[in-house]
Amino acid sequence: MNKVAEKAVELLLKSGKTVACAESCTGGLIAKLITDIPGSSEVFHLGEVTYSNDIKSRILGVDTVTLDKYGAVSEQTAVEMAQNVRKLAGADYGISSTGISGPDGDGICNEAGLSFTAVSTGEKTVCRKLETHSSDRDFNRNHTAENALSLLIEIIED
Amino acid sequence: MNKVAEKAVELLLKSGKTVACAESCTGGLIAKLITDIPGSSEVFHLGEVTYSNDIKSRILGVDTVTLDKYGAVSEQTAVEMAQNVRKLAGADYGISSTGISGPDGDGICNEAGLSFTAVSTGEKTVCRKLETHSSDRDFNRNHTAENALSLLIEIIED
Repeated sequence: MNKVAEKAVELLLKSGKTVACAESCTGGLIAKLITDIPGSSEVFHLGEVTYSNDIKSRILGVDTVTLDKYGAVSEQTAVEMAQNVRKLAGADYGISSTGISGPDGDGICNEAGLSFTAVSTGEKTVCRKLETHSSDRDFNRNHTAENALSLLIEIIED
Repeated sequence: MNKVAEKAVELLLKSGKTVACAESCTGGLIAKLITDIPGSSEVFHLGEVTYSNDIKSRILGVDTVTLDKYGAVSEQTAVEMAQNVRKLAGADYGISSTGISGPDGDGICNEAGLSFTAVSTGEKTVCRKLETHSSDRDFNRNHTAENALSLLIEIIED
């Protein structure tokens, strides 16, 4: 079991809070790390893996203007994903990830290893930009997922 | 990368088809195994991790009568999950998983290691019952996820 996920679930269980996640570049890894932990069903009810722009907009309600103006890999999209999945699930916290896992960049302007992760509490949403400068897909996905869970821990402990 | 997931993605890419998944007991692992593979964004647009009954019904449209009558861990629920996520995503195939990963049973009548996985094509839905008789959570989750992807491969190759 992943230590960061274990700590996040422990804190959620202690405080009686729930979390939902909306993942793009991590593709289910955040949900997987949380649900690896026995008892996580108390704190985790919904994960959305929204890989395409159409699905981000149609299922998760991310504004198409946001996607067109800032792109899927942007702070603005990460923030809306975290806010919207929190509301959709009726959870206390919403987590999101969006980025370029690699091995290739997006062919436009973003290189592999760039990602954004956000955590929303309803009162506030905090977003973090990550850059690994690596083309290692596994490394990038794990890096984003662990940072998402670390950010959740920081916000719970704040 | 997981060999079964790799083969499934390769077959989907070759045939120009897409897949969506609705996961309960595997908690994002099926989506994670698919999206581990570079290029999977061509064939995978949506994964839903629907961990609670409320979310299975509200987000995925599983009939509450099905959940009440047969339970979340049942062939009927697995079938509706696969059918509904396929429609929701507008995908060619829908995959689902529901079961008891463990280490404990559900405290009612199901022991850890029991799961159901289904694949829906629109024309038909095939469901498989799995029983590992193991309380090893990681083993059970991997077993269900790999069987879900194997069932998808069988149906594509049929």
